[in-house]
Amino acid sequence: MGRKTDDSAGGPRMNIETALPSGLLPLTRLGGAHVADTVEFLNGKTPEEAAEFVSRLPPDWAVEVMDQPPFAWASEMLEMLPADKAVAILEGMSTDRAADVLRWVDPEIHATLSARLTPEARNAIEHLLTYPEDSAGSLMTTEMVTVPSTWTVGQTLDHIRAVERTRETIYAIYVLDPATKRLQNIVTLRRLISGDPAAPIASVAQPYAPITTTPMANREDVARLIAKYDLLAIPVVDSTGHLIGICTFDDVIDAMIEEQTEDVQRMGGMEAIDEPYMQISFTEMIKKRAGWLCILFVSEMFTASAMQVFSDELEKAIVLALFVPLVMSSGGNSGSQATSLIIRALALRQVQLKDWFRVALREIPTGMMLGGILGVLGMIRIMVWQGLGLFDYGPHWQLLAITIASALVGIVTFGSLAGSMLPFILKRVGFDPASASAPFVATLVDVTGLMIYFSVAYLILKGTIL
Amino acid sequence: MGRKTDDSAGGPRMNIETALPSGLLPLTRLGGAHVADTVEFLNGKTPEEAAEFVSRLPPDWAVEVMDQPPFAWASEMLEMLPADKAVAILEGMSTDRAADVLRWVDPEIHATLSARLTPEARNAIEHLLTYPEDSAGSLMTTEMVTVPSTWTVGQTLDHIRAVERTRETIYAIYVLDPATKRLQNIVTLRRLISGDPAAPIASVAQPYAPITTTPMANREDVARLIAKYDLLAIPVVDSTGHLIGICTFDDVIDAMIEEQTEDVQRMGGMEAIDEPYMQISFTEMIKKRAGWLCILFVSEMFTASAMQVFSDELEKAIVLALFVPLVMSSGGNSGSQATSLIIRALALRQVQLKDWFRVALREIPTGMMLGGILGVLGMIRIMVWQGLGLFDYGPHWQLLAITIASALVGIVTFGSLAGSMLPFILKRVGFDPASASAPFVATLVDVTGLMIYFSVAYLILKGTIL
Repeated sequence: MGRKTDDSAGGPRMNIETALPSGLLPLTRLGGAHVADTVEFLNGKTPEEAAEFVSRLPPDWAVEVMDQPPFAWASEMLEMLPADKAVAILEGMSTDRAADVLRWVDPEIHATLSARLTPEARNAIEHLLTYPEDSAGSLMTTEMVTVPSTWTVGQTLDHIRAVERTRETIYAIYVLDPATKRLQNIVTLRRLISGDPAAPIASVAQPYAPITTTPMANREDVARLIAKYDLLAIPVVDSTGHLIGICTFDDVIDAMIEEQTEDVQRMGGMEAIDEPYMQISFTEMIKKRAGWLCILFVSEMFTASAMQVFSDELEKAIVLALFVPLVMSSGGNSGSQATSLIIRALALRQVQLKDWFRVALREIPTGMMLGGILGVLGMIRIMVWQGLGLFDYGPHWQLLAITIASALVGIVTFGSLAGSMLPFILKRVGFDPASASAPFVATLVDVTGLMIYFSVAYLILKGTIL
Repeated sequence: MGRKTDDSAGGPRMNIETALPSGLLPLTRLGGAHVADTVEFLNGKTPEEAAEFVSRLPPDWAVEVMDQPPFAWASEMLEMLPADKAVAILEGMSTDRAADVLRWVDPEIHATLSARLTPEARNAIEHLLTYPEDSAGSLMTTEMVTVPSTWTVGQTLDHIRAVERTRETIYAIYVLDPATKRLQNIVTLRRLISGDPAAPIASVAQPYAPITTTPMANREDVARLIAKYDLLAIPVVDSTGHLIGICTFDDVIDAMIEEQTEDVQRMGGMEAIDEPYMQISFTEMIKKRAGWLCILFVSEMFTASAMQVFSDELEKAIVLALFVPLVMSSGGNSGSQATSLIIRALALRQVQLKDWFRVALREIPTGMMLGGILGVLGMIRIMVWQGLGLFDYGPHWQLLAITIASALVGIVTFGSLAGSMLPFILKRVGFDPASASAPFVATLVDVTGLMIYFSVAYLILKGTIL
């Protein structure tokens, strides 16, 4: 977005000092900083401080800063800066980034600013805003180079030289059918400059149909295509085959980083947060975390119910209670391993939905093996403690050891199976598989784990200590 | 790596059919497939099938396939193909990818093949192999465009046209000091083509010192720089300031995807695996998962010890045992939330090691609040069950409810604190913070959680049911 992706250092350095609100920060830290460093610095400040800072920047520098997607306070800036300044900045920003930022601005302010934009800018921005967030449409820029297929290599080069400064990338040139205006094929600048100026543009075009995406495609799929085919940019075409914009690799890298953050946070068992950790407010933080925590807590209450069902057995053999946490957690751990494996396998398209059964057939023996290993460790533990007299597990301690071991095999197997199936189920019903957090899996497995544990105990210990 | 990053569709399509081992796969699936699709397809086959397939490809197509980093069987190919064919392919591949692939080839075969390479190729490849895996040195390509600062814009353009086909990217041109051969600055192709052919190259160069990295920098840092400054490629310079290679954005995207997979798997509580899920062998899978599972299991044994310490209390008040899983899991869940938050905050440089105290000061109140919310839910549960006569928690059920609630506040607070500090500790001692898996955190918190639970119970219930 915004930033000229092809300037190998991402925009001019700015001499911050001249623009520095006195006392706001040590000059030394920002003297001649790169715009990306400035953004990193401002993200660590409050929106108010950032606004004071940006308002003192020369217009073109302010635009540079606002054009950086990592800048966390861009929307706040538009709300805080005087309208005329905000409008001037919006006009200067790349349309895709401007739309992105306006998306989060207070509706009223949004309307006022939008009304004062030039018709061209307003239409371009409002059009991008019609696409859902995180869609290719919202990621794309409309500032690309297009030429009719009737042009020559020389004509195209001249055209590029003329428009270079107003385009986000010029390394891919999009050749349109002069009649239908549909995207015909793509010419890369490297082929273009090595071509014969008099030759028709088609002579240097790629010999195959361009790889494209649609405005409604989500950013993960766009990222996958860019990564898979090593594209500098991917053209976005509408249903009629007309080119409506391009997504550049740098937008996609930013999208990938955001996506990764969201995934990790979801996998941690919470809602994804947009703001930097240090900036998010206390109430916001509670909101994002309490929801899942409560859901997990309420579901986990079934463990209490399960324990209640077996409370008589517990009365008789309190020793069974001692191993509840140990046995139960093993199911959750193996489940969390299986889940993380499948989440990535699905994301990398190594497995498809239809492979769920093959996966199940892999996880069951794996789980049994892993459960067996833990079972042996568990038995050893009991033997050693009993042997060394560290604790007395009662006259039937051998049976107890066997109970623990068998329960572990069952629980770890069930954990691996449940953990591996959960991402499939989530994907099937239209959720992001990455929402299958370790706590989520653990909770699912805990109740069943207890059931397995007590049932096994009942079978093995009935008539002795039960 | 390998692939021309600037050809907007990543290499020629290949008509696979002609090269198809009969019966290996339905022709329809690969007819005229893009090389990236071919790779995706081959990754789903066994190495043997892939070798049979590649051996039938025309040499230049075989090189195309082998040059794709996502191709999982590249090293196996070199081991399985006849030496002359393997050598021919290596010569055709880009040096950085060739080195990458050879890294995993059986040492003997590696030696034989290397011996048969042209001296230039051998030296280039073996040199890259001296850099550790996942370092900038191992990611970089040596196929970039360099010109002395004494050249004109026109000279440079002519040079580029001449060498274009042998370079991985020509969109950044590296200007060297003619005397010292040190990297002086960078010219982007877009500025070059819009410059005056007669003007000196310096006239279109970037007006500031280039952003560079070192061969020993790890790939995450390279990715961060490329993403932060929107670079097409980042120059790798040695300690003397000489340019020894460049890392291109597509290598970095691939590295980011690999990195993400490793992080997710580590966060799931296992060792990262390289092969696709469906390809990895059973024993390999067990190896990768059993290690952590056993470590967690053995640590979790302390819960059994903790329970043993309190077994007298349990004897007296079996009702306490019923809530052990519920209360314990809450600590793990809040801990896993905090951990995932901090893992990303560290990765995105939103927080530094030195911020650990500020983070702790945020997590403690957050944890108390969250624990309070869960505590209320817990009390409601007990009141309702008691009230509706679903279960009898005994005459002192009110005290029990208070015990559960207070324990939850303590445990969730401790969980959030421990979970948020763990990534800092791991980073401090030089581990990847992403190794702080949810199961790891849960295990850490479980034992302490039990202690807190029983201590609170002792304080509140002493003299009544204890």
